[in-house]
Amino acid sequence: MVAGPVPRPLPNALLLGLIPVASWFVIRPLIDPVPQVPAIYSSIGFSLFAFLITIYLVPALGPTFVKANLKGRDLLKVYSDPIPESQGLVVACVYILSLILFIPFAFTRSFTQLANAKPSPEGITVLEFPHHQLAVYLSSIISLLIASFLGFLDDVFDIRWRHKLPIPIIASIPLLMVYFAEHGNTNIVVPIPFRGLFGTLVNLGPLYYLYMIMLSTFSTNSINILAGINGSEASQALIIALSVIVNDLLYLPWAVWFRIPVHLLGSKADIEFGGLWGAGMSKGSQVLVERHLFSLYFMLPLVAVLTAFLYHNWYPARVFPGDTLCYLAGMAFAVVGIQAHFSKTLLLFFMPQIFNFVLSVPQLFGLVPCPRHRVPRFDPETNLLHPSKAQFLKPPSKLSTLVLRIFSILGLVDLTTHPNNGSILETSNLTLFNVFLVRFGPMKEERLNQLLMCTQVAGSVVAFVVRYGLAGLVYDGDRR
Amino acid sequence: MVAGPVPRPLPNALLLGLIPVASWFVIRPLIDPVPQVPAIYSSIGFSLFAFLITIYLVPALGPTFVKANLKGRDLLKVYSDPIPESQGLVVACVYILSLILFIPFAFTRSFTQLANAKPSPEGITVLEFPHHQLAVYLSSIISLLIASFLGFLDDVFDIRWRHKLPIPIIASIPLLMVYFAEHGNTNIVVPIPFRGLFGTLVNLGPLYYLYMIMLSTFSTNSINILAGINGSEASQALIIALSVIVNDLLYLPWAVWFRIPVHLLGSKADIEFGGLWGAGMSKGSQVLVERHLFSLYFMLPLVAVLTAFLYHNWYPARVFPGDTLCYLAGMAFAVVGIQAHFSKTLLLFFMPQIFNFVLSVPQLFGLVPCPRHRVPRFDPETNLLHPSKAQFLKPPSKLSTLVLRIFSILGLVDLTTHPNNGSILETSNLTLFNVFLVRFGPMKEERLNQLLMCTQVAGSVVAFVVRYGLAGLVYDGDRR
Repeated sequence: MVAGPVPRPLPNALLLGLIPVASWFVIRPLIDPVPQVPAIYSSIGFSLFAFLITIYLVPALGPTFVKANLKGRDLLKVYSDPIPESQGLVVACVYILSLILFIPFAFTRSFTQLANAKPSPEGITVLEFPHHQLAVYLSSIISLLIASFLGFLDDVFDIRWRHKLPIPIIASIPLLMVYFAEHGNTNIVVPIPFRGLFGTLVNLGPLYYLYMIMLSTFSTNSINILAGINGSEASQALIIALSVIVNDLLYLPWAVWFRIPVHLLGSKADIEFGGLWGAGMSKGSQVLVERHLFSLYFMLPLVAVLTAFLYHNWYPARVFPGDTLCYLAGMAFAVVGIQAHFSKTLLLFFMPQIFNFVLSVPQLFGLVPCPRHRVPRFDPETNLLHPSKAQFLKPPSKLSTLVLRIFSILGLVDLTTHPNNGSILETSNLTLFNVFLVRFGPMKEERLNQLLMCTQVAGSVVAFVVRYGLAGLVYDGDRR
Repeated sequence: MVAGPVPRPLPNALLLGLIPVASWFVIRPLIDPVPQVPAIYSSIGFSLFAFLITIYLVPALGPTFVKANLKGRDLLKVYSDPIPESQGLVVACVYILSLILFIPFAFTRSFTQLANAKPSPEGITVLEFPHHQLAVYLSSIISLLIASFLGFLDDVFDIRWRHKLPIPIIASIPLLMVYFAEHGNTNIVVPIPFRGLFGTLVNLGPLYYLYMIMLSTFSTNSINILAGINGSEASQALIIALSVIVNDLLYLPWAVWFRIPVHLLGSKADIEFGGLWGAGMSKGSQVLVERHLFSLYFMLPLVAVLTAFLYHNWYPARVFPGDTLCYLAGMAFAVVGIQAHFSKTLLLFFMPQIFNFVLSVPQLFGLVPCPRHRVPRFDPETNLLHPSKAQFLKPPSKLSTLVLRIFSILGLVDLTTHPNNGSILETSNLTLFNVFLVRFGPMKEERLNQLLMCTQVAGSVVAFVVRYGLAGLVYDGDRR
């Protein structure tokens, strides 16, 4: 019998050296001269602390999880040691606690009194958030808490697929309630070609709430179904979070300023970055700066805890995330997309997930048989992953055959057909991982996850080109 | 082998008849004429729904809990069937969800537009809460969520006694953060005899935050240690919640008005109840009315879910609450005590818990041996409970002997002494339940819980006498 992996070592000296750095960031808003956006320093400080706590707590709590029967076997390994499962719980607790401790730094005037006594720094400054934003921030925390809580209950009670669907809906109720109580904006900007029909703005009313629910359901479940190999859940979420951060940074006031001439790609306005007065893409709008700050406050600690978790979850995984992590991350993306009003941009960062979801539809809706696990098949001899198969116990319907033939022509599936009548006997499972294995041949698990990460990064690059290059063709600068 | 109890029957016709009643209450604020305090009707409506959902959901989810290994044996019964444990989780989920769905009714102007179009009703009216209260309300929900979440984790991971203590502290962080961000009042009113020394108001500053943490730690743990017999946790919490409600009602505007002449007891002002303009004890203060409304919004659904749970938890119990229920209820009391500023009155309702805690101190701090379980001993022959004993493996110290002798003289413990030298060999455990059994002799489990409930009610009666009769001697009407 082959022994499983031991806990990954922690470079203590390096990590503990972060403590003074993190502390400096946390208290930076209290030090003169007060920076342009003081709270962002504290947010970075809390994120560093969250990173440290997570990277130590995850392995330390492993045995406790195994003892409480929160454990699983790694199906794609030769060893069968129990691996702690649902450790997304630790990530969720640290993440949410850091968001709560951050409240006074973003929302209290006394923390920034120092600044008010002096002449204000030049340009756009966000010394304190407008007060109604506190309710929005708190409702977001409630949604994250509910998503994590229900995700953990899912892990403990092993809730069935159908009963899982309402989880993101329940978790988004606090968002909706406060959005409603705050008389949140339910208008959307109409793309230029349709303005003759609908005007510039359309008030979606109750449909907007439906849209918010659908966004959280999608962002949560789409990460959850692109899962199953070591590190995949955390690394997807990490890259999406980093993409959101890059996007947010374009809207902040920085002392540096530069312009990327995307008008050459057909856009009407160039990408601007930084600038104290214009704040880059915010073009002088304090509201836009605040929205993207709000998003950063949620994304910075998320990146921190995900990175720490990924350190232990990377191939060969010492811990598993459980559904808890997927629900937490998905809900965090929904929260920033909704509250900071960039849900369309957010969806662009989800391209691999959208592709995987669309590809999965025939299996999710019963057109093609769906086995309990669709993860790739592991060959213990070669240590390589192969596409896993779904078998047709009865001959496929005409629609199923048509869909699978099209997928086959596109090179997305590997079909086994009957030698005589050519009917489909089995197909590789309809997931992005299996598509990779069909197209690029068998590979190691670590390699497959790296391929997913590269795809996710490439998707984000395309997303930025679409958002800032091509969107100018259908939207003008009028953003709400 | 004796079979365990079957699920308690539900009178469907009666219960389902509540649905139209609950619906009417929920939509009452939208019906003309708008009442004095419209949101309270919706709160009652949501509470009725919460009651219904809990009373059906608790038995329905029982097998799921047993399957997920959340089960326990009832130590005080002859049968050994597994009983679903930690079902306080169901209570917590229903309770918190009803609080969230209630948000638009208390905090949205559009719900009360009808009222604003008409001439306002006479007297004090609370059509919409002041906006900053939304943040306070949300932070309270976060604290309740964290308390329930950590309580459930405690049930799953079986956290050790010492590691449990910080749970209420962590859960109260959101309260403190928002209290700070909102520049909450940290003054306390000084009792009249000490005003020469300290003045009328003392600003406790950071000490006030410490006080808030201690209050939530106490209210949470004190219920948790007065537990162990069927129905005890839920019935204590229920009576405390009802006492808080009675106290709140004294401050609301009602069309009726009457006065209880407590000045005969030595108080300076009588107890006034109702009155549209004066609002009883509020004496015209809109702020006091709002505070006690805030408290009612949390207590009404709590009473509802506790009653529904108690129906199944009553002797012989079909379900167990787990730590989850104690944490939830304790935190709910701390929330209203802190946010509605009546923590001193609240503590008066905790007299049995305070007595039990003080009595337990020698065992909690190691002066007297503390066995794993301190619940009374069950005699299967007679079906009666007897005081459980703690044995001294080595002779007790002088301090321990002194304390136990005093307790013995007061009739609180039953000591077994060495026939020769008179040293203490064993003592009954230091809990309120054992005191009852020492004083009144062995009794049935149901009877013991009824005795606890009577004590709790008597305590609340005394509390009201102290609060409104005697407090006039040390406080004037100046309440902040």
